Amino acid sequence: MELLEQRIQKDGAVKAGNVLKVDSFLNHQIDIGLLNEIGKEFKRLFADTNITKILTIEASGIAIAAIVAQYFNVPVVFAKKTQSINLDGSVYTTKIHSFTHQRDYDVIVSKKYISPEDHILVIDDFLANGCAVEGLIDMIQSAGATLEGVGIIIEKGFQDGGKRLRKKGIRVESLAIVDAMDDVTGKITFRH
Amino acid sequence: MELLEQRIQKDGAVKAGNVLKVDSFLNHQIDIGLLNEIGKEFKRLFADTNITKILTIEASGIAIAAIVAQYFNVPVVFAKKTQSINLDGSVYTTKIHSFTHQRDYDVIVSKKYISPEDHILVIDDFLANGCAVEGLIDMIQSAGATLEGVGIIIEKGFQDGGKRLRKKGIRVESLAIVDAMDDVTGKITFRH
Repeated sequence: MELLEQRIQKDGAVKAGNVLKVDSFLNHQIDIGLLNEIGKEFKRLFADTNITKILTIEASGIAIAAIVAQYFNVPVVFAKKTQSINLDGSVYTTKIHSFTHQRDYDVIVSKKYISPEDHILVIDDFLANGCAVEGLIDMIQSAGATLEGVGIIIEKGFQDGGKRLRKKGIRVESLAIVDAMDDVTGKITFRH
Repeated sequence: MELLEQRIQKDGAVKAGNVLKVDSFLNHQIDIGLLNEIGKEFKRLFADTNITKILTIEASGIAIAAIVAQYFNVPVVFAKKTQSINLDGSVYTTKIHSFTHQRDYDVIVSKKYISPEDHILVIDDFLANGCAVEGLIDMIQSAGATLEGVGIIIEKGFQDGGKRLRKKGIRVESLAIVDAMDDVTGKITFRH
């Protein structure tokens, strides 16, 4: 997605350790206009599916999922990272390893909000090693729902999450795939 | 807001300890159509202001803020609950006590994303004791920005957060104010 790649090149910052900071427009401050263009693009890419629900994970997936959901006219469910005492006991759970925060955390979704009739689109900001997406897919499978595909804003193509998911036959649509980045020059190479 | 009160009465669940669960449409599964009506109502209520940015806090404020922001045509910034290693050191911080989770947590906003020129609308799902909103206001003041007001979906009118904020001269617009709720009968009494 040309507009997105231009924005990443302009406002993204490459840091040591293969960190790509997109804080200024995607996951701390959020450019809602850009998210609307992203929503239209996902709708175009998944036009042949019959999505009934969008599933994401807190926190940085939520704004994206909410705006994207408008184009599919479906509700959003976001997986929560810790057991809240405001949630009933009846939940799907999975464990996800965060390389960013160097720890495992438990993720839950109430069983009430994913049913076997659902056709689900998973949305997230980044795909790197794929742990978060695999955790969400795990819960979709526990619910007996249908996974229609995974929509990612930025895939780190040099990490193996995308390859592993596609090998399993999962449809992954990434709007920008970064094949290399250099924290000295700031150069970002996109796959085309 | 009539539509919202009807929805709370229909799909909200009153639990012991003054807990109002709105998981099915507001803060776990999210009804995006309802959020659009909420966005229009906040735009109407704050039509006389010159909002440049919407500030909220993760996680349940994010979807609301993203949809509401479309009606003001401004970016969203969400305060983060823990120090992420992906964030630069230059942040505003505040400590917020969560009665829900029975603990304090640190909240941060990058200094890059709130400036003295900003006119800020704070958005959150619930207002009860007011700790979260006060934490956000604290950071807005540290930045020297202008607080235009606070937009809340559901205020628990029997707790003192709203009263305390209004006493300080802060404009608080709550779309539904719950004055009483009964976890035995499920009855919810709204202020009109």
